[in-house]
Amino acid sequence: MISVHLENGRVEVRRTPRPRRSPGFALIRLLCGGVCNTDLELQRGYYGYSGVPGHEFVGEVVDCDTPSLKGARVVGEINLACGRCEWCLRGLGRHCPKRTVLGIVKHPGAFREFLTLPEANLHVLPPSLHTDVAVFAEPVAAACEILDQVKIPKGEPVAVLGDGKLGLLIAQVLHASGAQVRQFGKHREKLRIAEAAGVCTEIVKSKPPIATFQFVVEATGSAAGLEQAVRMVRPRGVIVMKSTVHGLVSIDTAPVVVNEVTLVGSRCGRFGPALKLLSSGKVRVDNMISDRFPLSQAPRAFNRAAAKGVLKVLLDPC
Amino acid sequence: MISVHLENGRVEVRRTPRPRRSPGFALIRLLCGGVCNTDLELQRGYYGYSGVPGHEFVGEVVDCDTPSLKGARVVGEINLACGRCEWCLRGLGRHCPKRTVLGIVKHPGAFREFLTLPEANLHVLPPSLHTDVAVFAEPVAAACEILDQVKIPKGEPVAVLGDGKLGLLIAQVLHASGAQVRQFGKHREKLRIAEAAGVCTEIVKSKPPIATFQFVVEATGSAAGLEQAVRMVRPRGVIVMKSTVHGLVSIDTAPVVVNEVTLVGSRCGRFGPALKLLSSGKVRVDNMISDRFPLSQAPRAFNRAAAKGVLKVLLDPC
Repeated sequence: MISVHLENGRVEVRRTPRPRRSPGFALIRLLCGGVCNTDLELQRGYYGYSGVPGHEFVGEVVDCDTPSLKGARVVGEINLACGRCEWCLRGLGRHCPKRTVLGIVKHPGAFREFLTLPEANLHVLPPSLHTDVAVFAEPVAAACEILDQVKIPKGEPVAVLGDGKLGLLIAQVLHASGAQVRQFGKHREKLRIAEAAGVCTEIVKSKPPIATFQFVVEATGSAAGLEQAVRMVRPRGVIVMKSTVHGLVSIDTAPVVVNEVTLVGSRCGRFGPALKLLSSGKVRVDNMISDRFPLSQAPRAFNRAAAKGVLKVLLDPC
Repeated sequence: MISVHLENGRVEVRRTPRPRRSPGFALIRLLCGGVCNTDLELQRGYYGYSGVPGHEFVGEVVDCDTPSLKGARVVGEINLACGRCEWCLRGLGRHCPKRTVLGIVKHPGAFREFLTLPEANLHVLPPSLHTDVAVFAEPVAAACEILDQVKIPKGEPVAVLGDGKLGLLIAQVLHASGAQVRQFGKHREKLRIAEAAGVCTEIVKSKPPIATFQFVVEATGSAAGLEQAVRMVRPRGVIVMKSTVHGLVSIDTAPVVVNEVTLVGSRCGRFGPALKLLSSGKVRVDNMISDRFPLSQAPRAFNRAAAKGVLKVLLDPC
């Protein structure tokens, strides 16, 4: 079968044997994969990962322990947790210290014709949910995570900084939850996607509104975003940190202390709420697909995903 | 009367007229002042303040509107709020955007024989509470602020980083609240003060315990403290930021995001709980007084307060 392989910054296509599933695991045939910024960061060597990348996928279960799961169209949570530790017992396997992570930490990823994941990680998709929509389940879950961490009252003004893929999903998720979202970005054409979903957007200016928002979500992906969020948040307000920036970020912590601001790091989320939002059409992703390539052209897909102005690039089985 | 004056990094003693009180304000005779790190930072020019410094004080009311207040021994909250804005109506005058701050922002401070403060800011001291103890009300209130912001379960292990004046008070306040405090510092002799109050302490090592504490209070006063706190906190844990560091702090935000850590900036607090703790003897400050000087020797007092190993320096009226 065809597998994408990442090593020393190179994306290659290789022929490899079909993986064997362990008990408790499902063998899954890839139907669609999505290239995420994290994949591009893996390529840049940020996580010291070499192997098969890919953690956004839709697949079809071809072999598993549970008979009813066979043939199901599924998405899968990316953290493979031990299931027994304190974190797992609290329903927070996403923080299990023994976890591996699909295509990111010690578990080969989804950019190959067949992959394996624990059955417990899988969510069966309703027939009405299109594969090209469901492939956004993981990043939409990451956006939904904010609602699990921070209580935002209905009608509350929330600033979302950044108009990349994650920023656009966050703006839509928070808008769908009843918040009064103002999204700040640099790209008129990207912001239009959020506008189409009813979000108020504006091109970020050199002087953004100061001390204005009780909630600010920082999803610019840049080191400068946090400093800007600190300027925009009100005293006693909350900044949700969604950008994983590599290297050190310099911030003036004095206003955080003086204004008693709360910063909340936020990463992966539960798939259930994400699938509901995607099924209901409250979060729209069809206009976020910039391009698609077969697995055999993965190097081109990665290059395209890294290009300016490009949003989601999908990978199809060959 | 004698006033201390700060200008361009110089501490001077001047003869000035006694201040006039406005309606709603009390005229207060200084009984004792405490030199705080913020005063030393004002001296270094960090806040662009020139004028009378000092915000930790005990005084006697000599003139005021409310007859029962006359002659009372008082401490005073340092933020002079408008009393009418949204923040003030929520009981958070400490964040009033129009506030001035005693000896810090546009209101002459307490290091003078007579000072003025709004009557609403004053707390009358019980006769049993010694002036040299009550003068710690403001920093103890800042330590108590943590308990207003973060819910720490009884018996919960909490790391306190730093063994300066604020770190020692925080460790004692959290210990008194029922938390299981482990204080990390660099100075055996300072840590002994917290030990005497029942706090477990240890000299900080190059490799502190990793991902161990649900709660970490960063009170080192140094830029490196935050990075260390991030290493010590558990996933989904809380770091309380108490250090006001000047200039930019460089941190790796990736572990904050990946481990979904919450950072909470924390500044001034309510005086009520602080006075209760000081009155009950649950927080002991007598062994934190390193030296005392008359107001007329304020330059010496500031030098002494800035010296290595020195904790609280008090100022007495001449």
